[in-house]
Amino acid sequence: MANSLNVAVVGATGAVGEAMIGILEQRSFPVGCLFPLASERSAGSTINFRGKSIEVKRLDEFDFSSIDVGLFSAGGSVSAVFAPKAASSGCVVVDNTSYFRNDPEIPLVVPEVNAHAIDGHDGIIANPNCSTIQMVVALKPIYDAVGISRINIATYQAVSGAGKRAIAELGQQSVELLNGRPVSPIVMPKQIAFNVLPHIDEFQENGYTREEMKMIWETQKILGDDTICINPTCVRVPVFYGHSEALHIETREKITAKAVRELLQAAPGVVVIDKCEPGGYPTPVSDGADCDGVYVGRIREDVSCAQGINMWVVSDNIRKGAALNSVQIAEHLFKSV
Amino acid sequence: MANSLNVAVVGATGAVGEAMIGILEQRSFPVGCLFPLASERSAGSTINFRGKSIEVKRLDEFDFSSIDVGLFSAGGSVSAVFAPKAASSGCVVVDNTSYFRNDPEIPLVVPEVNAHAIDGHDGIIANPNCSTIQMVVALKPIYDAVGISRINIATYQAVSGAGKRAIAELGQQSVELLNGRPVSPIVMPKQIAFNVLPHIDEFQENGYTREEMKMIWETQKILGDDTICINPTCVRVPVFYGHSEALHIETREKITAKAVRELLQAAPGVVVIDKCEPGGYPTPVSDGADCDGVYVGRIREDVSCAQGINMWVVSDNIRKGAALNSVQIAEHLFKSV
Repeated sequence: MANSLNVAVVGATGAVGEAMIGILEQRSFPVGCLFPLASERSAGSTINFRGKSIEVKRLDEFDFSSIDVGLFSAGGSVSAVFAPKAASSGCVVVDNTSYFRNDPEIPLVVPEVNAHAIDGHDGIIANPNCSTIQMVVALKPIYDAVGISRINIATYQAVSGAGKRAIAELGQQSVELLNGRPVSPIVMPKQIAFNVLPHIDEFQENGYTREEMKMIWETQKILGDDTICINPTCVRVPVFYGHSEALHIETREKITAKAVRELLQAAPGVVVIDKCEPGGYPTPVSDGADCDGVYVGRIREDVSCAQGINMWVVSDNIRKGAALNSVQIAEHLFKSV
Repeated sequence: MANSLNVAVVGATGAVGEAMIGILEQRSFPVGCLFPLASERSAGSTINFRGKSIEVKRLDEFDFSSIDVGLFSAGGSVSAVFAPKAASSGCVVVDNTSYFRNDPEIPLVVPEVNAHAIDGHDGIIANPNCSTIQMVVALKPIYDAVGISRINIATYQAVSGAGKRAIAELGQQSVELLNGRPVSPIVMPKQIAFNVLPHIDEFQENGYTREEMKMIWETQKILGDDTICINPTCVRVPVFYGHSEALHIETREKITAKAVRELLQAAPGVVVIDKCEPGGYPTPVSDGADCDGVYVGRIREDVSCAQGINMWVVSDNIRKGAALNSVQIAEHLFKSV
C-alpha cells in the first residue's frame, strides 16, 4: 500500500465518522494527513487521531485537490453536492450514504463479495446499507456454491443505525421509564425503549419501507443478479449496537446445513458461532458491538422447504455495516499503489 | 351462560394465573367460587377477586370434585400429574402448558379459529402457545378465503413469556447497565437487556428450538391442515409485554393487500392498524400490553412472490396469548349451560 495518503472524513463527528477515524488508526491505514470535516455547526471541535488532537474543518470551505481519498458519511444531501466536487478534484470518494447506490455507473462494493467492481469506478464508490452488507457477506459463499433463488428476511436493527441522537434517545427513554416517568419519542417515530418498531426509513407506495427496498436493490446489484427474489421486513429493536437478521434462504440446488457451516467457516469476514445449546449463537451485545466480523449461527435446514437454509446473522452496523466496509474499500483502492 | 360455576386457577400466583383471575372478573365470567391454587411454596398468599381477598391453596391437597372448570398454567410437569386427576373428578381442564397440545385426542383451541374442536373434548382442552395463538387468529380469514401454502415467520417475543422472573431480569439488567455496572444472566441464557436472543425453549435435533417447532405443530393442528409449510425463527427481545411477528405468507390463490385488509377488518378478535406513515402500525408498547386484540399492520403484497402477503402481528402474550384465550375457551364450554 502507499506510504502516505491524504484522507478526508466527511461527517467526522457522527457515529460512523468517529468509527472511521478509529478504524483508520487501528488498521494502520497509511494516512499522511487526516482532515476531519463537518458542517459549520460541528466545525471547530476536535477529534483524536494517533494521539494527536485535530480540529474539525468546514466541509463547504474545503479544497479536495490534495486529498487522495474521502470517506463520506454526512447524509445523502451532503454527498449529492460535495462528492462530485471532491471527485472532480481528483479525490476518490467512498460514499456511505444511499445517494449514489442505485446509480448503474457507480460501483456498490462489499470487498469480500465484489471487490472486482472497484476497478470500474470513476471517482465515486458507494458503500451499501448496513443491513445489506452483513447479509451479502454471509450469503456470498452459498450463492457461489449452489445459487440462491429467494430470501425471506426479518431484521432486528440497533438504534445506532439512526445516529447518535437515536442512541441517546434509547438510553434516555430507558432511564425515564425505569424511574416511572412517561416518555415522548423525538428521533424515533414511536417509543423505542422496551418496544420494537417495524419501520425504518420512509414508506414507499408498495407498502415496503425504503430500508426494506434498499436490501432488495442493493443485494441484486452487489451480487450482479436481478433474478434473486428478496422479501424483507425491517424492524428497529432496543439495542444500541449490532444488527441481527433472521435469513430464510432458498437455494437453486440442495445444500445441507453441515455444508453451509463448512463454507462459512472458510469464508472471508465470517465467524461461525453455531452450537445447538444455550448461548451457542451470536447476539448483538456479545458479537455485534465493536467487533469486525459477520457472525453466523442457527444454521439449519428449513423443515418447510427441500432447498431451504435458515441462519441468524449478527454484525456491528457501525463497523462492518458502515465505517469498516468503507475503510476496506479504501484499502483495496490503494493496495497496488 | 350458567349462573354460577366453581373455577380453580392452577398457578394462580404466576404471570398468567394472575391475568386469568383479572380476566374472569373483567369479563364477568359466572364464577360462583374461585379457588386459586399453587405449589406449597406459594400457598398461603392471597389474591384479590371482586374486591375480596382469597387465600391461595395447595394444589396437591385440593379436591376437584366440586369444580366445574380448572384453568391450568403452572408448567407441563404439574399439568401432567394434576390435569388428568382433575378431569377424572369431573372438572373440565383448560390447560395452558405444552403437555397435552400434541395429543391427537385432546383439542387444541383458539376460539376465533376452531371453537368447534371444543365439542370433542374428554375433560381436557389444550390452550396453544402464545406465539401460535396470535398468528392463527390473523391467518384464519386468509386461510379460509384463498388457502395458505407456506409461512415464513420471525418473532419478536417479550420476556413475560418466560415468566415473572424473566420480567424482573430485564428490568434489573437494564438498571444495572444504565448505571454502568456489569450484568450476568440468571433466567435468560444470555444478557437480554439491550440485546436480542434467537433462542426460546430447548434446542431440537433438527437445529430448530422447541418454540419454533411448537408454531409448526400447533398451527397445523389448529387449522386441521398438515400440508401447510411453516418455517419460524423465534427470538426474544427486550420488551416486557407483547409479542410481535413478521409473517411472510404464501397463499394458494392470489389475494391483494386491500382484500386482506378488508378480511381482517371484519375478522373476530383482529384490529387492523395499517397506515403507510410513521406510527401507522401496531407495536408491543402501544398495542401489546394489557390489550385484548390481535393487532395487524404492515399488510403488503410480497414483491418477491406473486402469491405472497406480508404482515406484522402484535398481541399481548399474557392475555390473548395465554390467559384470555383460556377464559374464552371456558366461556365457549359453558355458553349453552
